[in-house]
Amino acid sequence: VTIKAVVFDAYGTLYDIKSVAAVTEQAFPGHGEIITQIWRIKQLEYTWLRSLMRRYQDFSDITRESLAYALRVLGLECDDGAFERIMDKYLHLDLYPDAAAALAGLRDRKLAILSNGSTAMLNALVRNSGLDRVLDATISVDARKIFKPAPEAYSLVESVLGVPPTETLFVSSNPWDACGAKAFGLNVA
Amino acid sequence: VTIKAVVFDAYGTLYDIKSVAAVTEQAFPGHGEIITQIWRIKQLEYTWLRSLMRRYQDFSDITRESLAYALRVLGLECDDGAFERIMDKYLHLDLYPDAAAALAGLRDRKLAILSNGSTAMLNALVRNSGLDRVLDATISVDARKIFKPAPEAYSLVESVLGVPPTETLFVSSNPWDACGAKAFGLNVA
Repeated sequence: VTIKAVVFDAYGTLYDIKSVAAVTEQAFPGHGEIITQIWRIKQLEYTWLRSLMRRYQDFSDITRESLAYALRVLGLECDDGAFERIMDKYLHLDLYPDAAAALAGLRDRKLAILSNGSTAMLNALVRNSGLDRVLDATISVDARKIFKPAPEAYSLVESVLGVPPTETLFVSSNPWDACGAKAFGLNVA
Repeated sequence: VTIKAVVFDAYGTLYDIKSVAAVTEQAFPGHGEIITQIWRIKQLEYTWLRSLMRRYQDFSDITRESLAYALRVLGLECDDGAFERIMDKYLHLDLYPDAAAALAGLRDRKLAILSNGSTAMLNALVRNSGLDRVLDATISVDARKIFKPAPEAYSLVESVLGVPPTETLFVSSNPWDACGAKAFGLNVA
């Protein structure tokens, strides 16, 4: 198989979502880790359930609602300023230390992100981390109004890059995402 | 609105899935509660992810795979006999104490179960608990090869009972199930 395109998941794969914990810890000392964990679990759950119910809302809304859930269930009060500061971190997530070098080493292929993130969130994140100079495309599932691991989401890769699934390698650290991509027919790492 | 049919979720609504914990505790003293919790979380996750990926397997397979996951992640070894004894409990779950009386009080309406459970699991459960004498139908999502909260699953109620969603009350203790039913157009308690 000749791999002509390498497509990465964003959150948890190229970008360290745990880096949010530093901001939540600052806002709620002693609770940063637990907020971040509940937030992530609920964020995923909302994407899956809304996709199944055909009640899609974009990832920005989902991320807000799941953060509000995490704070509510922990009995933590949050003023608007602190809430927005936490949310803003999602636009300034840290790249994993080896991400930029790994991408640079793959430059002879088409490179892209396929993410559940909304277009606005992803564009800001990619620009803020400098990946806009490396990537050929930043693809949001928003174009299909359904989240990964639905096949419609993965089919966007071929639509945007013009490379068939058999010649595309999809890279994700999220097991459910890797399984979804494989079920769709992509090569997966 | 005239309610002509009342349809219940099974697991966690009419039947106490926590009653499984007694059996898992017997097999793994000190771990009954944590096994039961991880098992349930993974069981739900598998139903949602497989539905989204269009890789449906029936609830019996899902329940086996999620139990195997729970034991593996906790580092617990299980012989086939013990595994089957735990699985068997799913066919002999306890009714909540007030379930039978509540159903008896609704006898002038059509009464049914709509559950993610496989047809074989549900028929055994309903028979073992005596609800086969009260219910007009036991409806498994297996007929549509997709799990709740997908709209296709809820649409089975009208197909089987002949009562439209606007005249049906769906009862579930699972928030995601109640939301899915409401998103589909059923009345929900």
